[in-house]
Amino acid sequence: MARYARGVVLFAALAIAAGYAWVDWNKSGPGDGLNSRLWQPDPAFGYWHPTRFYQYDGQMSGQFKGEECIACHEALTPGIVADWRASRHSAPKGRASVTCEACHGNDHAKIRMPDRTVCAGCHARQHDEFLDERRFGFPSHALAMERAVDAPHFADKPKAEVTACLQCHSVAEKCDSCHTRHRFSAAEARRPEACMTCHSGPPHPDDDTYFASAHGKRYLADADKTDWSKPLAKGNYTTPTCAYCHMAGGKHQVADKAIWKFGLLQVNPLTSNNEVKRKQWVAVCADCHPADWSRQRLAEMDAERKRAWAKLNATEATLRGLRGAGLLHPNVKERPPYPLDKPGTWFARERIGYYDGQASAFYNVSPIERDYFEMWYFANLGAYKGAAHGSPGHVGQGHAGMDMAKQDIQARAKALEQQDKPPAAGRWWLEGEYTKHNREQN
Amino acid sequence: MARYARGVVLFAALAIAAGYAWVDWNKSGPGDGLNSRLWQPDPAFGYWHPTRFYQYDGQMSGQFKGEECIACHEALTPGIVADWRASRHSAPKGRASVTCEACHGNDHAKIRMPDRTVCAGCHARQHDEFLDERRFGFPSHALAMERAVDAPHFADKPKAEVTACLQCHSVAEKCDSCHTRHRFSAAEARRPEACMTCHSGPPHPDDDTYFASAHGKRYLADADKTDWSKPLAKGNYTTPTCAYCHMAGGKHQVADKAIWKFGLLQVNPLTSNNEVKRKQWVAVCADCHPADWSRQRLAEMDAERKRAWAKLNATEATLRGLRGAGLLHPNVKERPPYPLDKPGTWFARERIGYYDGQASAFYNVSPIERDYFEMWYFANLGAYKGAAHGSPGHVGQGHAGMDMAKQDIQARAKALEQQDKPPAAGRWWLEGEYTKHNREQN
Amino acid sequence: MARYARGVVLFAALAIAAGYAWVDWNKSGPGDGLNSRLWQPDPAFGYWHPTRFYQYDGQMSGQFKGEECIACHEALTPGIVADWRASRHSAPKGRASVTCEACHGNDHAKIRMPDRTVCAGCHARQHDEFLDERRFGFPSHALAMERAVDAPHFADKPKAEVTACLQCHSVAEKCDSCHTRHRFSAAEARRPEACMTCHSGPPHPDDDTYFASAHGKRYLADADKTDWSKPLAKGNYTTPTCAYCHMAGGKHQVADKAIWKFGLLQVNPLTSNNEVKRKQWVAVCADCHPADWSRQRLAEMDAERKRAWAKLNATEATLRGLRGAGLLHPNVKERPPYPLDKPGTWFARERIGYYDGQASAFYNVSPIERDYFEMWYFANLGAYKGAAHGSPGHVGQGHAGMDMAKQDIQARAKALEQQDKPPAAGRWWLEGEYTKHNREQN
Repeated sequence: MARYARGVVLFAALAIAAGYAWVDWNKSGPGDGLNSRLWQPDPAFGYWHPTRFYQYDGQMSGQFKGEECIACHEALTPGIVADWRASRHSAPKGRASVTCEACHGNDHAKIRMPDRTVCAGCHARQHDEFLDERRFGFPSHALAMERAVDAPHFADKPKAEVTACLQCHSVAEKCDSCHTRHRFSAAEARRPEACMTCHSGPPHPDDDTYFASAHGKRYLADADKTDWSKPLAKGNYTTPTCAYCHMAGGKHQVADKAIWKFGLLQVNPLTSNNEVKRKQWVAVCADCHPADWSRQRLAEMDAERKRAWAKLNATEATLRGLRGAGLLHPNVKERPPYPLDKPGTWFARERIGYYDGQASAFYNVSPIERDYFEMWYFANLGAYKGAAHGSPGHVGQGHAGMDMAKQDIQARAKALEQQDKPPAAGRWWLEGEYTKHNREQN
Repeated sequence: MARYARGVVLFAALAIAAGYAWVDWNKSGPGDGLNSRLWQPDPAFGYWHPTRFYQYDGQMSGQFKGEECIACHEALTPGIVADWRASRHSAPKGRASVTCEACHGNDHAKIRMPDRTVCAGCHARQHDEFLDERRFGFPSHALAMERAVDAPHFADKPKAEVTACLQCHSVAEKCDSCHTRHRFSAAEARRPEACMTCHSGPPHPDDDTYFASAHGKRYLADADKTDWSKPLAKGNYTTPTCAYCHMAGGKHQVADKAIWKFGLLQVNPLTSNNEVKRKQWVAVCADCHPADWSRQRLAEMDAERKRAWAKLNATEATLRGLRGAGLLHPNVKERPPYPLDKPGTWFARERIGYYDGQASAFYNVSPIERDYFEMWYFANLGAYKGAAHGSPGHVGQGHAGMDMAKQDIQARAKALEQQDKPPAAGRWWLEGEYTKHNREQN
Repeated sequence: MARYARGVVLFAALAIAAGYAWVDWNKSGPGDGLNSRLWQPDPAFGYWHPTRFYQYDGQMSGQFKGEECIACHEALTPGIVADWRASRHSAPKGRASVTCEACHGNDHAKIRMPDRTVCAGCHARQHDEFLDERRFGFPSHALAMERAVDAPHFADKPKAEVTACLQCHSVAEKCDSCHTRHRFSAAEARRPEACMTCHSGPPHPDDDTYFASAHGKRYLADADKTDWSKPLAKGNYTTPTCAYCHMAGGKHQVADKAIWKFGLLQVNPLTSNNEVKRKQWVAVCADCHPADWSRQRLAEMDAERKRAWAKLNATEATLRGLRGAGLLHPNVKERPPYPLDKPGTWFARERIGYYDGQASAFYNVSPIERDYFEMWYFANLGAYKGAAHGSPGHVGQGHAGMDMAKQDIQARAKALEQQDKPPAAGRWWLEGEYTKHNREQN
């Protein structure tokens, strides 16, 4: 027995060491993240993930001081100089101005594209708060770059299609997603437009739902008369914005009021953790509204979520039934493998519904599964955002959309069950462009 | 004969009395409206329909004067105090200020949430004009709450799904849908944003069609330089807004220029009633445009509507044909009953197309009927709003959408007609979640 | 041989003369353009195409000077007088003011609706630049009216449906599409709203993609504090607008940086012509950004386009295969003729995909072809606009949409190929409303 135990320990030790080596080897390629060996970065990636990829490829060299940079760039790119002059960096209270070389270095041939760690040199509190979001798990601004480059489809899909992902996911690396360069203005980031470049469109119509709400209506009418230099505190604004509620008091960690996790997870809204978050939530609403009103609206959102999940779960059960009966075609063996899986693997993943790397569901699953994905991602999340931001139209439309999708999926499932012989999908799906051609083009 | 006539009179008298008793009994439940016995209000309903449902559930008691309310709320909820200070209520011309107790009462334990009748105490003309809209029938701001709570699906659908309805339909009960509290500003309500919280998205893209028009384009460029305190009169604005045309001169009744009834009804645009409305319409346009131009654009909208109705009617005829031939499945006996109908009732309603309580069409009809509903509600109304508000893109898209839906529905109808044996829908539809579970959860 | 050659020359001469005569005869009807014999203009067309169609139909007559026009219209239509007073026309630098009769003539009974040639009297440079766009071919502002009235479906579809087309296409005839009357402001036209009335919605979400970009975010936050009277030059703005990039330096010809031709054509982005355009493009970006960054973003857009065309071409090949195998129903003989074709013509056009007069594809083709059309026109162009304007969400959504459409079309093609006997479409399609009724109603 002792000898057997030694064998187990030895095997475990070897297995763990092999695991580390595998992960290390795996991450050692030219790309980044878990699948770094499988893709090449484009030069433009240097702007989205500067620490990892930026390389200056211009012809300018020489060492310069800030005023020299400005003298030249005033003519070359006057907009960014004007932005800097309009920023607090050009004249901070009681300090020397923060000039170009503070962030970019003073050697033009080795010019640095600053990432968040450069900003952290002076803005440590904000940076610490931002990183603190990591402990709440996905979805997360602080983990957004991993969410992109670690996703199997990032390596599997053609680069032309995934390059756009980095623009928003770069929020994990750089501060200018919200405070655009070179003004880096707090006032700008307090306005909803600062969030909109990424938080718009399906599956997260944060912009549409906010602007359609009574809050958004006031914003649109009052924004140009509002003093956005005031801090995000009670009484300073005529209407709340994204930042007012999600970053109350200017805190750079937006997860600690996220009860429903962006709508992505079916949760118990009444866990002790969530009870703490609910109190914070109601406290923000109570800056303007009676607390009981806020609690009731929050309860309404819980009810909306519960309803939505009942619809999603019932529909998913229908699909599981089909899969169990062998009626989903193409099935996992008939279709292109899940990104980075191999065809014919022992444990081919046959998943339904929302899961990590879900964007794959757009193209290599059966149409009925894809319709479920859209029900999940578009109708469901649209309803959630409507409930959370006060746009009743989006709630109504989202639930009507879920009802329609559920009914369609159930009717088609029923038709499939009544067929004598399910249609064979054949080899056709295995000839898909992603499977055959993409890897070598990447 | 006389004896027979007495019998008829007696029977009629009894029947009428029984009818009154039935309606009375019917409306006596905890809810509101025709189906009030069938649903329970949520506490939040008190904010949307205060006269009927509001009950203070906080712990604060005591009697206070306005200045005492303000002293406390200045710290508690400074935003609403700032709003009030910015309002004319805080300093009306030549009158004492209108303070908190005027609207909310002075007993905190019995605090009143004001509805429109409270505002009517001072603003009788506006309130009278608002109520005057009732005589034009549906759709109507003044009847909006009945449209919600009287609809069978309000009682039949889970509360989590219909709660959102009340937010917009509360316009019938309260003035702060357009004049947000506690500023209650006329200037705010003159801007299109005031209407947008409800008038946005399908089936009434009033916002998108306006902002995409030449009028909207000017609004977006000029709004921040415009003096919105000026009355809605000729020469005061560089571009018209929702209120400028629909509430010309500040009249709080928006129906008297509604020739096409929100696009919901196929009407004769040239009845004598509508001729009066057309003159009013052209008169508003002629504040800026030549009258002949305005008449021509109005004629264009008539032509657009005539075209749209021809498409809708042809498609509805196809569906009626299918129903006559027993080819619509699930038919009325196979599907969950129309809300509040009983299955197996003698006169089960089998309706196609737009009708009162139409939202039900989203979920308990056959897919081909639902597609017609969407053609009707989304493509058709989108085209109408485009024609009415000057967005040619919406007209083109709406008609293309109707063409597509019509073609699809006709092709599917043809396929159904060619089948030897129509598919039996079976019991499946009767197990639907609405039918089995909703009533008890409500 | 010489005799034979003479015959050829004679035949050619006759054929060419006959061709000219045919085109002349063809264009001589009450309408306009190639199909002018086949349609009647509505009175409102006079406002969109004044030179060709405007006729005053009011009762006012008499000859007036500018100050007399103003005296009367100040009361009648004060808005347009206020607009004129706010314009440079009312007080040009160092010149006499440009009053009403300069553009409208001084005889009210023969009042002129000015078209671009009237503006060209003073603004020759801008007009010449505008017309210069013609040599770049379609799509083109300067050729927009031909694109409307020459399209077969303009004559074939009911007038109520094509009237809306003229509103945007009138940009070819009049300057007030961008500089709204009677302010005719350059400042207004520098803002993105000036372009949005036409450039919005699918298939060209120029507005959504811009406003969702980092550029648009800054515009929304800064617009009300920006001095729009400044020329479109380096350093004058905190963010670029439509006009800043597409009309750099105020040049009224927007085609000379159009590398991808509005996304409509699959081009080689690296031809010598396009290399010239790329340099101009990068030069504009380099007003604010490093040139290498701009080149990389441009290369990203090329890659996105290449990907998109690969998807479109693969899908079109699937459809061509179906057509070759006689599996597309209705086929060209079973469906209503292509507009202005005759049924049973020898060379019936059976086209797939994007082509001139493509809007027809919405209604008289098989559903599978129409789905391809939507893939092409909505998903594909949406992705392009996202890539061009910096909205990553639109790129992702557009490609997901193309993937879905491609997969669906291929799956349906496969199902059609496996059927023993393709469904006969029958006479049904030939009874379509367009074929039987439209011509006489036009």
